[in-house]
Amino acid sequence: MSENKTKGKGISRRDILTGPVKGAAVVGTMAAVGGGALMSERAAASGTEGSVAPGKLDDYYGFWSSGQAGELRIIGVPSMRELMRVPVFNRCSATGWGDTNESKKILTEGLMPESKEFLAKRGMETYHNGDLHHPHMSFTDGTYDGRYIFMNDKANTRVARVRCDVMKCDKIIEIPNASDIHGLRPQKFPRTGYVFANGEHRVPLVNDGTNMDDIENYVSIFSAIDGDTMEIAWQIIVTGNLDNTDCDYQGKYAMSTSYNSEGAVDLEGMTSSEMDHVVVFNIARIEAAVAAGEYKTYNGVKVLDGKKGSKLTAYIPIPNSPHGVNSSPDGKYVMINGKLSPTVSIIQWDKLEAVFNGADPRSAVVGEPQLGLGPLHTAFDGKGHAYTTLFLDSQMVMWDIDKAIQLYSGKKVDPIIKKTDVMYQPGHNHTSMGETKEADGKWLISLNKFSKDRFLNVGPLKPENDQLLDISDGNLKVVHDGPTFAEPHDCIIVRRDIVNPVNVWDRNDVTWEDATKQAKADGVDLEEGSEKVIRDGKKVRVYMYSSAPTFSLNQFKVKQGDEVTIYITNTDDVDDLTHGFTLGNHGIAFEVAPQATASVTFTADRPGVHWYYCQWFCHALHMEMRGRMLVEPA
Amino acid sequence: MSENKTKGKGISRRDILTGPVKGAAVVGTMAAVGGGALMSERAAASGTEGSVAPGKLDDYYGFWSSGQAGELRIIGVPSMRELMRVPVFNRCSATGWGDTNESKKILTEGLMPESKEFLAKRGMETYHNGDLHHPHMSFTDGTYDGRYIFMNDKANTRVARVRCDVMKCDKIIEIPNASDIHGLRPQKFPRTGYVFANGEHRVPLVNDGTNMDDIENYVSIFSAIDGDTMEIAWQIIVTGNLDNTDCDYQGKYAMSTSYNSEGAVDLEGMTSSEMDHVVVFNIARIEAAVAAGEYKTYNGVKVLDGKKGSKLTAYIPIPNSPHGVNSSPDGKYVMINGKLSPTVSIIQWDKLEAVFNGADPRSAVVGEPQLGLGPLHTAFDGKGHAYTTLFLDSQMVMWDIDKAIQLYSGKKVDPIIKKTDVMYQPGHNHTSMGETKEADGKWLISLNKFSKDRFLNVGPLKPENDQLLDISDGNLKVVHDGPTFAEPHDCIIVRRDIVNPVNVWDRNDVTWEDATKQAKADGVDLEEGSEKVIRDGKKVRVYMYSSAPTFSLNQFKVKQGDEVTIYITNTDDVDDLTHGFTLGNHGIAFEVAPQATASVTFTADRPGVHWYYCQWFCHALHMEMRGRMLVEPA
Repeated sequence: MSENKTKGKGISRRDILTGPVKGAAVVGTMAAVGGGALMSERAAASGTEGSVAPGKLDDYYGFWSSGQAGELRIIGVPSMRELMRVPVFNRCSATGWGDTNESKKILTEGLMPESKEFLAKRGMETYHNGDLHHPHMSFTDGTYDGRYIFMNDKANTRVARVRCDVMKCDKIIEIPNASDIHGLRPQKFPRTGYVFANGEHRVPLVNDGTNMDDIENYVSIFSAIDGDTMEIAWQIIVTGNLDNTDCDYQGKYAMSTSYNSEGAVDLEGMTSSEMDHVVVFNIARIEAAVAAGEYKTYNGVKVLDGKKGSKLTAYIPIPNSPHGVNSSPDGKYVMINGKLSPTVSIIQWDKLEAVFNGADPRSAVVGEPQLGLGPLHTAFDGKGHAYTTLFLDSQMVMWDIDKAIQLYSGKKVDPIIKKTDVMYQPGHNHTSMGETKEADGKWLISLNKFSKDRFLNVGPLKPENDQLLDISDGNLKVVHDGPTFAEPHDCIIVRRDIVNPVNVWDRNDVTWEDATKQAKADGVDLEEGSEKVIRDGKKVRVYMYSSAPTFSLNQFKVKQGDEVTIYITNTDDVDDLTHGFTLGNHGIAFEVAPQATASVTFTADRPGVHWYYCQWFCHALHMEMRGRMLVEPA
Repeated sequence: MSENKTKGKGISRRDILTGPVKGAAVVGTMAAVGGGALMSERAAASGTEGSVAPGKLDDYYGFWSSGQAGELRIIGVPSMRELMRVPVFNRCSATGWGDTNESKKILTEGLMPESKEFLAKRGMETYHNGDLHHPHMSFTDGTYDGRYIFMNDKANTRVARVRCDVMKCDKIIEIPNASDIHGLRPQKFPRTGYVFANGEHRVPLVNDGTNMDDIENYVSIFSAIDGDTMEIAWQIIVTGNLDNTDCDYQGKYAMSTSYNSEGAVDLEGMTSSEMDHVVVFNIARIEAAVAAGEYKTYNGVKVLDGKKGSKLTAYIPIPNSPHGVNSSPDGKYVMINGKLSPTVSIIQWDKLEAVFNGADPRSAVVGEPQLGLGPLHTAFDGKGHAYTTLFLDSQMVMWDIDKAIQLYSGKKVDPIIKKTDVMYQPGHNHTSMGETKEADGKWLISLNKFSKDRFLNVGPLKPENDQLLDISDGNLKVVHDGPTFAEPHDCIIVRRDIVNPVNVWDRNDVTWEDATKQAKADGVDLEEGSEKVIRDGKKVRVYMYSSAPTFSLNQFKVKQGDEVTIYITNTDDVDDLTHGFTLGNHGIAFEVAPQATASVTFTADRPGVHWYYCQWFCHALHMEMRGRMLVEPA
């Protein structure tokens, strides 16, 4: 066993040389340690104007969806640099996400049985793609708590969770009864708690092909998922389809927009009405109804009826195909963005109790400023200002919430403070901490759908453009153009002190519990590996540990036709010392981060000599970190 | 048909408002066109110090490998922003690479028959992963010509090509006889011509499991691929294994390093000798030998014997496990980087003729400066300086080539000009245009394997760090830290005037030739679509065009069990107006860029209503761009 096989917490160069990062400026000296040159550096916070000097840290973690790319992205703000890609609904050639046994378990265990059956006929164990729109962190008491990021897959009707300690996806569930999960938000108070998820498209509730022409009775489904267990607490049928969702800061209500309240199946029908609506979900009433057994069970889930007229929901008319829903950080209001209407409708949360007790639904609307063409989403600075994306005008408009309310009540004031051009056609926007009670008014992101000629031409498929705006001084200035691969649909910006990932895995992590169990049954310690392969009929298990620059086995022999499982445990526990395992011409490659175990199973069907190697650069002798699988012909 | 369905060349906002980009600074005015706000902008070249202001363009296209992520990345230099991801060996959830019929054809047609058979048993049509190390552009007369980027897959022994007109991969071939393609370079003169590719690992030449213990007779194979046809021109067996490769500016020689000239299969054996070697390939002699029939054919490829002693090759002893091979832009020298030796060995190309005629192989070495610990790769500024990465020292060393040669001949001079710390452990480096005769000495990239604490912690798996150094003033200053997902193994930096991609596809493009042929047989014009599905037994073909915000069909009906092929033709020809097609809960999603056609085939096995939608944001009514597939139960 290698000398550097030790256990415990990895150490950081920054810890050794400069102490903890707390804005202290320590000018560097050089020190040669272990053959490498270490440079201590200024650990102070970042610069301004969207640039962060070499060696300085960003102030915020950005969590970005990637739309149809299916991954979660971690972006530094304000540098706008991509710090990590976290595979979720996609396949990942680098990490082996979708190929390792550990990732396959996460990708398959939450599938509906009928989906498994369908996918098996296509030769697939799970979906290979996703459309990840809305990443949001778990909340406690109205602000981010650093536990999880939740996100939706519109393409294959799923919801996933990423652990913020290791920044890996640990749960994916397919949502039955609903079709194409779109809007998603976690409960803000008292904690998450529920994760609310909109089924966008209307389909028959029992979608078995017997009732396809009965469009009137298609339904859209709102789901509440338990964020701790990732099980569906309840679902509720609504009128119209569902678009985006948000909730209040009191734990009383969730709210979803409907851009097709008409329930139409063609473009003309979907846009025929001047008024659509938001649906308000009364959480206490729904929980009481669940407790009272007022539900039917479909596919194992409790489904309640919340169609127009139900006591569980309220329908507030809103002009015209409203899209974004955004709660203000003061907990008082929620903004409904008009899309085909130039307005944002301001709903006051505490007026909803009266609505649920019979008042006119529109009585909860306390403002409806005209802001420009194509308002899609609104963000906040915690200082009473709102920032709304205007898709058609390609602008960001900054406006005063109080003045908009005064205007609605008849006072002659102009709520619009400033408009800034963004390039081009913004969808979502987001401010630093802006969806929490700790909104801090420093940075605003505009996620623009088209970049056109803002960057060097890269062919017919062009990047989108995430622009960073400085809102700290009221000037709303674009300070950075950030090209992105499809599709930075939505994002959140989280203060860095809230997010505290580990540097090395805990050997007791649940991720490889199956490997631990199998090793125990085989009398093997994962961290020690096994000198010889374990044979169990035609099933063969190979246990190796990796310690730079070697695998514990530099060869092993199997027979053609054997079902081989290879377990790799990375016994290095130095920060950043990830290994990999690639088996040549077998389509097998995966990541093994410090102190982690990962495994893959395949049938050895190519007789001959096949090299495996470490593909995650680990050492000066990295290229020599390899060995041979010898497959004896059958 | 929509009004904006027109054909021909797309137009650019920049063209309309500011004219062609040639450094002209045109201050913007606002103009409202078609409901969107257009902003002309300063089209001048970028700033300095690694930042590029919003709306300005980078000066260089960077083409970055992604190592085990399997894609090609296009990075703007000096901004270091990722402009595009081009899927190659990986699967892509966004573009449907690996799922569309058009991409499957490219991914499967170059596979070896035995690989197809093996993969079919694993339920795969092709490999799903790759390890893309070395992207290089095609050359004409010693400099880049903007036609193609070539690249290797070490994981599954393949070579691929990306078309620079559309920035998509058009050819992937698996290389028989070799194992794990590593080093790759295109011929520089007179043109590409050959693409040289190293088989890194030694395996039996007929690798069928009958001779696995005969390690002495394992072989490593060097391949010359025809860059135009992507067929293998010839292969040549060498002594030792192969690492990196480069070639001269005269079209006479290629050269590869061998870090394991011992031909060992374990770490001790691989590093036992103090001296290893480079292999020089004499192209004219090899071509003559091929013409004279001095080869054997294995797997349909002409294989020559170039082992030590062959007239086709020369073996030059080099200390110790040499790694990088880099030709200097003046065409005179090639640098061999010592890895385990602190030296770089300078070989003079025009001394090789004597070596091939019997002179001492070491007589071609004209310099061997000691630079520091772990020299891996060398780049050039075209002004007589070389820049070498020191892996162990975590430094970039700038040195004077002439002085290093003088030192070797006994003169007391110090070739080292400057050392700069890089963070941490650099592998490849590259200068702007540095591997061409037009090296311009402006920017240097250091591709560092570890970022450690240079960025906010994102868990056990950390980004690498691509640093940008300004070399224009001799100060060798790090001006930008660029975190990257695994693994920015290597890169090239190409002047922007050399790369001229199109904005929209040509309708006659070869990519969808099968679709065009099938449509013709069905009497359908792809651009017109078909109102009804074409049924051919249980095979059903659905032809749609997309024109924002509609698909030409908002519903179609098939029967459970039908094999359905859906063809989408994007008839929009506005720059940047890409559409997508996602079929809910079917694992199907793909990109259709302006004027392109793409298709997918699957068996419709889920009875009921399934929505398809456009997942590439295209219009204010993008969310309404959808329709229903109705699957009648069997």
